Amino acid sequence: MNHEFEKVTDKNTIKKIGIVGATGYTGVELLRLLAPHSDVEISYVTSRSNAGMRVDAMFPNLRGFIDLEFSDPSTDALAQCDLVFFATPNGVAMNHVPALLEAGTKVIDLAADFRIKDLDVWAKFYSMEHACPNLVAEAVYGMPELNRDQIKGARIVANPGCYPTAVTLGLKPLVDASLIDLDNIIADTKSGISGAGRQANVSTLLSEAGESFKAYAVQGHRHQPEIAQTLSLLSGSKVDLTFVPHLLPIIRGIHATLYTREIEAGKTDLQTLYENTYKDEPFVDVMPAGSHPETRSVKTSNMCRIAVHQPEAGSQIVVLSVIDNLVKGAAGQAIQNMNLMLDLDETMGLMQPALLP
Amino acid sequence: MNHEFEKVTDKNTIKKIGIVGATGYTGVELLRLLAPHSDVEISYVTSRSNAGMRVDAMFPNLRGFIDLEFSDPSTDALAQCDLVFFATPNGVAMNHVPALLEAGTKVIDLAADFRIKDLDVWAKFYSMEHACPNLVAEAVYGMPELNRDQIKGARIVANPGCYPTAVTLGLKPLVDASLIDLDNIIADTKSGISGAGRQANVSTLLSEAGESFKAYAVQGHRHQPEIAQTLSLLSGSKVDLTFVPHLLPIIRGIHATLYTREIEAGKTDLQTLYENTYKDEPFVDVMPAGSHPETRSVKTSNMCRIAVHQPEAGSQIVVLSVIDNLVKGAAGQAIQNMNLMLDLDETMGLMQPALLP
Amino acid sequence: MNHEFEKVTDKNTIKKIGIVGATGYTGVELLRLLAPHSDVEISYVTSRSNAGMRVDAMFPNLRGFIDLEFSDPSTDALAQCDLVFFATPNGVAMNHVPALLEAGTKVIDLAADFRIKDLDVWAKFYSMEHACPNLVAEAVYGMPELNRDQIKGARIVANPGCYPTAVTLGLKPLVDASLIDLDNIIADTKSGISGAGRQANVSTLLSEAGESFKAYAVQGHRHQPEIAQTLSLLSGSKVDLTFVPHLLPIIRGIHATLYTREIEAGKTDLQTLYENTYKDEPFVDVMPAGSHPETRSVKTSNMCRIAVHQPEAGSQIVVLSVIDNLVKGAAGQAIQNMNLMLDLDETMGLMQPALLP
Amino acid sequence: MNHEFEKVTDKNTIKKIGIVGATGYTGVELLRLLAPHSDVEISYVTSRSNAGMRVDAMFPNLRGFIDLEFSDPSTDALAQCDLVFFATPNGVAMNHVPALLEAGTKVIDLAADFRIKDLDVWAKFYSMEHACPNLVAEAVYGMPELNRDQIKGARIVANPGCYPTAVTLGLKPLVDASLIDLDNIIADTKSGISGAGRQANVSTLLSEAGESFKAYAVQGHRHQPEIAQTLSLLSGSKVDLTFVPHLLPIIRGIHATLYTREIEAGKTDLQTLYENTYKDEPFVDVMPAGSHPETRSVKTSNMCRIAVHQPEAGSQIVVLSVIDNLVKGAAGQAIQNMNLMLDLDETMGLMQPALLP
Repeated sequence: MNHEFEKVTDKNTIKKIGIVGATGYTGVELLRLLAPHSDVEISYVTSRSNAGMRVDAMFPNLRGFIDLEFSDPSTDALAQCDLVFFATPNGVAMNHVPALLEAGTKVIDLAADFRIKDLDVWAKFYSMEHACPNLVAEAVYGMPELNRDQIKGARIVANPGCYPTAVTLGLKPLVDASLIDLDNIIADTKSGISGAGRQANVSTLLSEAGESFKAYAVQGHRHQPEIAQTLSLLSGSKVDLTFVPHLLPIIRGIHATLYTREIEAGKTDLQTLYENTYKDEPFVDVMPAGSHPETRSVKTSNMCRIAVHQPEAGSQIVVLSVIDNLVKGAAGQAIQNMNLMLDLDETMGLMQPALLP
Repeated sequence: MNHEFEKVTDKNTIKKIGIVGATGYTGVELLRLLAPHSDVEISYVTSRSNAGMRVDAMFPNLRGFIDLEFSDPSTDALAQCDLVFFATPNGVAMNHVPALLEAGTKVIDLAADFRIKDLDVWAKFYSMEHACPNLVAEAVYGMPELNRDQIKGARIVANPGCYPTAVTLGLKPLVDASLIDLDNIIADTKSGISGAGRQANVSTLLSEAGESFKAYAVQGHRHQPEIAQTLSLLSGSKVDLTFVPHLLPIIRGIHATLYTREIEAGKTDLQTLYENTYKDEPFVDVMPAGSHPETRSVKTSNMCRIAVHQPEAGSQIVVLSVIDNLVKGAAGQAIQNMNLMLDLDETMGLMQPALLP
Repeated sequence: MNHEFEKVTDKNTIKKIGIVGATGYTGVELLRLLAPHSDVEISYVTSRSNAGMRVDAMFPNLRGFIDLEFSDPSTDALAQCDLVFFATPNGVAMNHVPALLEAGTKVIDLAADFRIKDLDVWAKFYSMEHACPNLVAEAVYGMPELNRDQIKGARIVANPGCYPTAVTLGLKPLVDASLIDLDNIIADTKSGISGAGRQANVSTLLSEAGESFKAYAVQGHRHQPEIAQTLSLLSGSKVDLTFVPHLLPIIRGIHATLYTREIEAGKTDLQTLYENTYKDEPFVDVMPAGSHPETRSVKTSNMCRIAVHQPEAGSQIVVLSVIDNLVKGAAGQAIQNMNLMLDLDETMGLMQPALLP
Repeated sequence: MNHEFEKVTDKNTIKKIGIVGATGYTGVELLRLLAPHSDVEISYVTSRSNAGMRVDAMFPNLRGFIDLEFSDPSTDALAQCDLVFFATPNGVAMNHVPALLEAGTKVIDLAADFRIKDLDVWAKFYSMEHACPNLVAEAVYGMPELNRDQIKGARIVANPGCYPTAVTLGLKPLVDASLIDLDNIIADTKSGISGAGRQANVSTLLSEAGESFKAYAVQGHRHQPEIAQTLSLLSGSKVDLTFVPHLLPIIRGIHATLYTREIEAGKTDLQTLYENTYKDEPFVDVMPAGSHPETRSVKTSNMCRIAVHQPEAGSQIVVLSVIDNLVKGAAGQAIQNMNLMLDLDETMGLMQPALLP
């Protein structure tokens, strides 16, 4: 192979990017998506346990695209970057972010350190004390369909969880329009197994999770308060919801099936409401009436596809919302946020059709 | 191979069994489960399009177990059997059943011809007129946990649908005890793809349905009125429910996630209620509190495993119910019914642990 | 969704592309890869059975990328294109190619009509007479690593088969260097199921082909004479080989395991030979010594990754070669050929990292 | 569930069975297959790390079938058993076997401690010194098709490896008949991922091994010397072979594709040779001429299905051999050996059709 894949870039304006914790699935997905991005260069990639190893020795899909080794994380080196992604476990980013912001480096955290505004809720669900509570208040929740303008000006963005992205985009038009009973929302969600991460684990072996399906965390999942917080902000009143996640025997994909009740049945044309809500969004696709979006229709893509149904024309509303958990649910949405924060075209590096078949 | 697999059977008391339409998945599953059954012999297996072909040429797993060819269906030959299974498309059994009952042969229909008592509902959902409406009234709905005694005396049994089995067993304790709001039941169900049958079809190709997940028939599915009928009979009042099926990229397994509201929150210990309801049932297993049953825990087995949850100790109840759609959801439950109808031990041929991994 | 995805293109130099038979997997893969290609526009897409249907109604991954309907194939309309791809069943292209070449339109056939130079062999393996034998002689076999210069000047290119691509690239260095016993070559090959196409078929259902593995066509497969022809041309003497294909329960990917014997054991450093052979190739990647390339390392990519082994340092050589059957094995290689034929950069539209995970 | 699944057994003659290391896949498969076996009872099941835990809490498929807890391994308790299975990692059994044999307890080792007669080869491939070399000589290689009579009288049986079972049964007729060139045997083998065991491991996660395929250990695999030893004993001369294993993205199943050359092409009717060799074997099924056995045709079953081909009627022979790696490749063959050692019917507990679909 001719290893001279060269991006045509302008060395004066190109932005330097760092990735902390690049050996997990969100990390390698950032690398895959950023490699051909014409306005950024990946200049620093860290992994404590693999320092010194070539990135493409671990991820051969990147041979010819990423000519870097993993480094031990160094705040000084990270501070040379224009923007740093944290693709680390919960609780890591919060210990490094203050120094980076101080140095003028912008930060996107793909973990949960800056998602929950209520520090007590955060401490309860993540079982630790927060290291920089003041920055939690400053951090912008990085869902462009909700907070585009704030993201543009942000120093620190909390990239949303995968389930919250699918659920929130699915419910936003109904909540915005105050159409539904906020006390009766059920989110039955199903995720591909890459959402469980790239950790050695018996329960996510192919022999254990293949050819099977199950619910998990029915008693309480960390994404429940995240969704509830966002819907409460949108609606202006406290929203609770029943949230049940399930594990799909596929690698990529989230499907949210959302059940809620219209307060006045038949009052609104929901199809039109959804189409209007998202008509200017590059990454939310309202499917034709009667559709059943498949997770594969967004595989590898930053798109969220949504269909809204009213079975039997009653008050029951059923919304179907699909994303690729590693793209719109993680690395793709993070790059969408990066583009906004760096004043680039919001869709750069993200306009590829999904993979089918 | 020594092709002399011989069951130890008593030629005087052994029952003769016929299977109409044995080339589909419920048909071959009947053959797999009945082959080692010590008190019956499969004496007649029909397939119009494959008449003359050896059964084990189509299904090599049966080599050494089934020494038969497919025959053209003949009512005379079927009438020589003690009991005939119809593993045929909807609308076939109803044309043959009257003559067989006349001849003294018992019948179990694995399709939907005899499941719905309301002939108008049936005609609407199955798009045809019924050929023998009087036998619909006579037919017993073959769910032993509900109708064991009537099944024992039945000439004609309507074997339940796969989804209705998982959903009904999951909700029965709550409905029996009049604990829940019957106007607010949601069944979010997921089925392995063998439920779509063994027909040439683009949408169920591995390349189409693999590595993907979707809902279907959100506007209305045939199993909705079947479930509603059973729950209405159990409760004594009209029950509607929201029923949304999804397609899993696995071969076998159904997972029903059931959402309902307790009328008086916290009134009843649901775990004890479920355990008491099913304590004498051979094929319903109430899992320990807090469990999340996996579909693989029942793969190849006639068991239904159920867990009941109350997240956050509120009024919301979440029930998880799993079956193998081809066993408890079809052929296994049919054999359970056969055992009852032929006065055999109800569990004969069905007591194998599920396959894991 | 904002449906205004606009490629930045130069309307004066952009090339018009037609695709005949775009409803199969090679067709939709051409659409997926060409949609973002900056120097071509897809102007005409045909499907006899789906004429009038929007392309993105069949393939929702293309929503926002392809604003076209399927048309009935018309030679006049196709002749307006600069280049036409035939993604049709074998035997279709040969009936349309003469008129298109006459009109000055270039053609790439992704089926087998122009691959085999010996018309008797072709007739035997494809069970029909050839419609334009003279063009078979003219057609260039479209493997750039073998025939780059001829492809640049070609009017008609025969795009190679998927297995032949993986096998030929795997063996070329050894054959070129006259190192191996040409009478003792075994190609044990395994293909993902998308290679079987998008036809309704029982044997490729998820329920049939999932969780299973088998060989097929051991008595003779159409790709055997295609590979033998190419290796014979490369070596200058008649090469036969034993070719056994197998069906993998995955959607995309081919793995060829190639066994041959070195004439003089230990004479040559095979790793260096392979690296030198492919050092300037953009789409052949010789992996480090001792590697075992995974099919997923090329999924969605036009790369072929190869490793060469000599177990126990004897004369036995084992070559491992992987491609994505729909990309380097079909649509990607076709676009590589298109780029060459239209005097564009050979790698345009094809420089994306493979998908992992 | 009524937890009173009771086997009809004769308490005077029933044999007591112990299983050491029952938390791996061969262990749970022994439990699944032995639970309904009418002439044995599982009386002692060990797991050092899970002592005190109910067996069915780890493996819910066994609820109602196995009413035991895991125990810490105790030689005294094991010595109360008639026969003990070691389903442990390599190197464990050899430390416990001498004391058990002393106590009159028979042993079947499902690991590799007693498979290789040449202690130097064993030490090289398993990287340790043997703890009881004299018992290696005594141990019988537990492949009933080769060594039935010795197994019947054995105190200690070395259960064969999974690949060696498929390869040896596939080649035995040719080697016995001295038909093939023993210097030119290639075994291209593919295994389902349960063969890698139930250990936490990144490389066998569904996200890593799903939707992919690769070779591994091309430079040398432990099963190569095991196969070479058996074929050398069968042929009376030293046999080497090229052995390349691959990892399939399925849970269960091995497919061996075996390539060898007939010394005198066309001398023998291979189909008849194979059928005659195995005509009295209960668990080797020679498929009709021209067949391509699928791994699913033996899934869950103790059967090995074989097809023999001569492509193009030349000297090249291609043999296809499939087993379930956890049944005939491990626990099923071990039970077949147990039946022989305990003077029971060889097929007891093993006569179930394979699972399809």
